[in-house]
Amino acid sequence: MKFAKRMDGMQASEIRELLKLTAKPDIISFAGGLPAPELFPVEGIAKVSHDLVLKEGRQLLQYATTEGRPSLRAKIAKRMADKYHTEVDPDDILITTGSQQCLDFAGKLFLDPGDVVLCESPSYLGALNAFNAYQPKFVEVPTDNGGLIPEELDKILETTPNCKFIYVIPDFQNPTGRTWSMERRKAFMEVVNKHNLPVIEDNPYGELRYEGEILPSLKSLDTKGLVMFLGTFSKIFCPGLRLGWVAAEHSLLTQFVKIKQSADLHTSNFDQGVADAYMETYDLDEHVKEIVALYKHRRDVILKAMEEKFPAGTEWTHPEGGLFLWLTFPEGVSARKVFDKCIEMKVAGVIGDAFYPNQKTDRSMRINFSNMPDDRIVEGIERMAKAIKECM
Amino acid sequence: MKFAKRMDGMQASEIRELLKLTAKPDIISFAGGLPAPELFPVEGIAKVSHDLVLKEGRQLLQYATTEGRPSLRAKIAKRMADKYHTEVDPDDILITTGSQQCLDFAGKLFLDPGDVVLCESPSYLGALNAFNAYQPKFVEVPTDNGGLIPEELDKILETTPNCKFIYVIPDFQNPTGRTWSMERRKAFMEVVNKHNLPVIEDNPYGELRYEGEILPSLKSLDTKGLVMFLGTFSKIFCPGLRLGWVAAEHSLLTQFVKIKQSADLHTSNFDQGVADAYMETYDLDEHVKEIVALYKHRRDVILKAMEEKFPAGTEWTHPEGGLFLWLTFPEGVSARKVFDKCIEMKVAGVIGDAFYPNQKTDRSMRINFSNMPDDRIVEGIERMAKAIKECM
Repeated sequence: MKFAKRMDGMQASEIRELLKLTAKPDIISFAGGLPAPELFPVEGIAKVSHDLVLKEGRQLLQYATTEGRPSLRAKIAKRMADKYHTEVDPDDILITTGSQQCLDFAGKLFLDPGDVVLCESPSYLGALNAFNAYQPKFVEVPTDNGGLIPEELDKILETTPNCKFIYVIPDFQNPTGRTWSMERRKAFMEVVNKHNLPVIEDNPYGELRYEGEILPSLKSLDTKGLVMFLGTFSKIFCPGLRLGWVAAEHSLLTQFVKIKQSADLHTSNFDQGVADAYMETYDLDEHVKEIVALYKHRRDVILKAMEEKFPAGTEWTHPEGGLFLWLTFPEGVSARKVFDKCIEMKVAGVIGDAFYPNQKTDRSMRINFSNMPDDRIVEGIERMAKAIKECM
Repeated sequence: MKFAKRMDGMQASEIRELLKLTAKPDIISFAGGLPAPELFPVEGIAKVSHDLVLKEGRQLLQYATTEGRPSLRAKIAKRMADKYHTEVDPDDILITTGSQQCLDFAGKLFLDPGDVVLCESPSYLGALNAFNAYQPKFVEVPTDNGGLIPEELDKILETTPNCKFIYVIPDFQNPTGRTWSMERRKAFMEVVNKHNLPVIEDNPYGELRYEGEILPSLKSLDTKGLVMFLGTFSKIFCPGLRLGWVAAEHSLLTQFVKIKQSADLHTSNFDQGVADAYMETYDLDEHVKEIVALYKHRRDVILKAMEEKFPAGTEWTHPEGGLFLWLTFPEGVSARKVFDKCIEMKVAGVIGDAFYPNQKTDRSMRINFSNMPDDRIVEGIERMAKAIKECM
């Protein structure tokens, strides 16, 4: 059998093999990106599911429109306005099977083989994988502790042909945990406006802020209809219902709808109804407050443990929100060797090179802190500190 | 903004505009393909949803494996063995966001631009649209009242380069309602074996048989690992939960899993759990018996009404199961004109040409009979008979 050329770029990645190692039960794993399941509003979801199916089962369980449940789209629009100062017409929102699906659709919409996708260096592995199916070249835009550097983007755009879009996560980025300042956001929008560059703004963690105020989205600063905003219920509600969305200028959204129709007709009408009914019956903001309190605590625990245990020369980001932070090992210490040593010591992160489409540094590791109780976090960081020291 | 070339082939189709006409409430529409919602097991689903979330909410609402819920995959494997004599290892099943997603994945797996997809002439519009995103050429294989003609397929394969796969619906085909005999199935498998041609066997309606015995699937006759079997819960349970699957030889399934991971990570774990728990608690076979009884009755009502009302020279298929039948108008009568006249008279079907990727005949119309009570069916056929007569 002969597969499409794109499958050559979709070989089972080494990283997936490594993740199998980290999933063993005796390993303290900072490798995943899972929400804390003890916070899932189990009883509320049980109740609204039951009542909703009885109330509107015949419509709920039938085929539905591709765009998504109108009352859920309206709630999402309201939420985007309230949280991110982003005014969007509910008709300009498409509900998708998780926001991962939006990444696939963005690739499908824009990319012919050899086209260029720009991304932060490093960037979210799942997005790189989704785009990879459409055979692009990646160009990495340099970043610093404040996130993407707009001047560097401008330089790249001046000299690089066939740039189809840029993919960015301005809030609590995966993998680094970094957040762009208001100034960076404005400077970024000036650059993309100058070059008419479409922007995929991925915002899965934006509401999970542990200090400071939520900043306006790029979409809210968009005057030319360039920004496609991706949101999800996975981190503020639960990921087992696959519910994400894209909000975009209407003529762009129409293209996403067309792609959605041939990809899977529509998102689970049941899942959409349950999220909608939950927000109707309960206060999702109260629920998000609980998540923020717990994750903030866990972030503080892990930062303190690192401060106490990690050897001098190891650096890490201080995320103002989200699920991840980013370790950089001292010059000459191989992240791959640290990883191997960590596995021996029954602890794991993700080797940072997985998040660079091109450049490899073998210096970094992504650490998740949302999914574990305090004692496991502390124990894990102690083990990791030993592993780093043994590799120095 | 510059979109990918594939988007040129994904323009909003004329057919979609026509379907909007047929969706007006005062129109008796045979145009859709909706299951009868009065049969959805609403109370059972309400109960199992509630109990399941309480029982296993923390796992159910969390991220899950890409392949799908193991106990549901096991039940699907058992069902395929029981219904279609098809022995499949549960590990060789991937659960998807409806079987539409499998069609998209098949295109993604096999098709480079310009590659050839073979299909029955006519074939399912939704599949043609899904494949279209990967810029293939379609070659239509001639059919007769017994379905695809294997000798014609052989001839085409002898002379056509770059044939990547064939897409077929051997049971109660959409749009024609035709079913392949056992002899045809065997002859077809001989031809594909001879040419090593991968086969997408789409079986959404197989359990909905109103006369005779369910026939073995192509997959059950497959000795070379060429057949990918697509199934769905949309017609035997409900489509608002988006649940389909592909069963394929393991090395092929691995490719589908890779594609699934970057497309949407995994199918709604909640939907999977609900279907699984429903089958655990209730007898799905009993439920399917109710569906079969009602649809058989509706098929009989529509066939009788056509027999009584339609003018001589109009022909239609006699489906042994499924949701659709296929009208062929007398020579010289334009299906497009009949459609326009039907809309005037507040009745609708789908113009048959939508189901031919290349050849256009303007002679046929697809008629759905699963979604309406008797009196509406009879009234609709009376109106349509008048429309046909006025076009003769």
